[in-house]
Amino acid sequence: MEFSSKLLENAVVEMSQLPGIGKRTALRLVLHLLRQPESQTAHLAKALVNLRTEINFCKNCHNISDTEICEICANPRRDKKLVCVVEDVRDVMAIENTSQFKGLYHVLGGKISPMDGIGPSQLTIESLLNKVKAGEITEIIFALSSTMEGDTTNFYIYKQLENTNVQTSTIARGIGVGDELEYADEITLGRSIVNRVPFENSLKNQ
Amino acid sequence: MEFSSKLLENAVVEMSQLPGIGKRTALRLVLHLLRQPESQTAHLAKALVNLRTEINFCKNCHNISDTEICEICANPRRDKKLVCVVEDVRDVMAIENTSQFKGLYHVLGGKISPMDGIGPSQLTIESLLNKVKAGEITEIIFALSSTMEGDTTNFYIYKQLENTNVQTSTIARGIGVGDELEYADEITLGRSIVNRVPFENSLKNQ
Repeated sequence: MEFSSKLLENAVVEMSQLPGIGKRTALRLVLHLLRQPESQTAHLAKALVNLRTEINFCKNCHNISDTEICEICANPRRDKKLVCVVEDVRDVMAIENTSQFKGLYHVLGGKISPMDGIGPSQLTIESLLNKVKAGEITEIIFALSSTMEGDTTNFYIYKQLENTNVQTSTIARGIGVGDELEYADEITLGRSIVNRVPFENSLKNQ
Repeated sequence: MEFSSKLLENAVVEMSQLPGIGKRTALRLVLHLLRQPESQTAHLAKALVNLRTEINFCKNCHNISDTEICEICANPRRDKKLVCVVEDVRDVMAIENTSQFKGLYHVLGGKISPMDGIGPSQLTIESLLNKVKAGEITEIIFALSSTMEGDTTNFYIYKQLENTNVQTSTIARGIGVGDELEYADEITLGRSIVNRVPFENSLKNQ
């Protein structure tokens, strides 16, 4: 791509560093900003820089938070003995949306992925183990994505917990609510039969 | 969406103002920036603000340019009598890529679109007519998108040029090179038959 302006080129190149945004899309976005009032670009730039420089993580669960202890961890009505292990803030938001979980979270900040150079020490696993050692937790729920990396991370943490009294569980894998059986993949369908639940249990969540 | 941090929410809301970027994508992009070095966010923010505040348009063709007269208009080897009318800088880049056009451009900055509140006065049409009146142009090529708005804009400018000696043409519409006939839409295929060209002409561009 040949640009008629160095300023334009810089903006497009920086924008196209974002994942899933190629040069063409970046150019479209940048031209859109040019057609909008100057204040919109200023607000966007300020919001991004402010977030990046002033970002804070909850000391307890490592979720993004503006306070030292996040709202969820500070809430006295939540069960501090029950901890749900998730990858990042998006998973916390998704689970909070269901209103089905009343415990605390532990945000790992990623998954073990040797291909991307991410080992256990880059995640917040040690902080989780420290909480377990301090006797603060009785049950841990693994809620990581059902991928090779997610399963590896689950298993790594599970192994580290072997000599403790903590109960562990993972979220149920099965056919999604509203999904047609014929379109489900074989592994999911197979697991949903092996891990079938008593019919009375299925009535509870309706 | 419930955010655990006001800073995060601000960044996501500003990012999702961009066209084609919803809240979910915005969150993904913002979380990506958080995982990158602080300098990347700083560079992105600076590039966008610099572009928006220091943006300059060529006095002659209205294309984005860092200099008062853009490189194309300042090039003595280009035919100043031949002007290609386009919507924005992306079209200039696309046509320049073909290396088939040796004249100058005139960037309208949009198309006439009453639905979006864009009339002729918001575009650089008057500047084009002034150049014509000054006798600087002998041929104008319309290269706008083949949409209702593009056709309207072409026709509006064409009408304004009625009492001048300027020749007008539009870029050829037809079956794209490499396209299969059976997949072409009827209107394009129909026009390509009506506007057929002598076979010898088609050999020239090969």
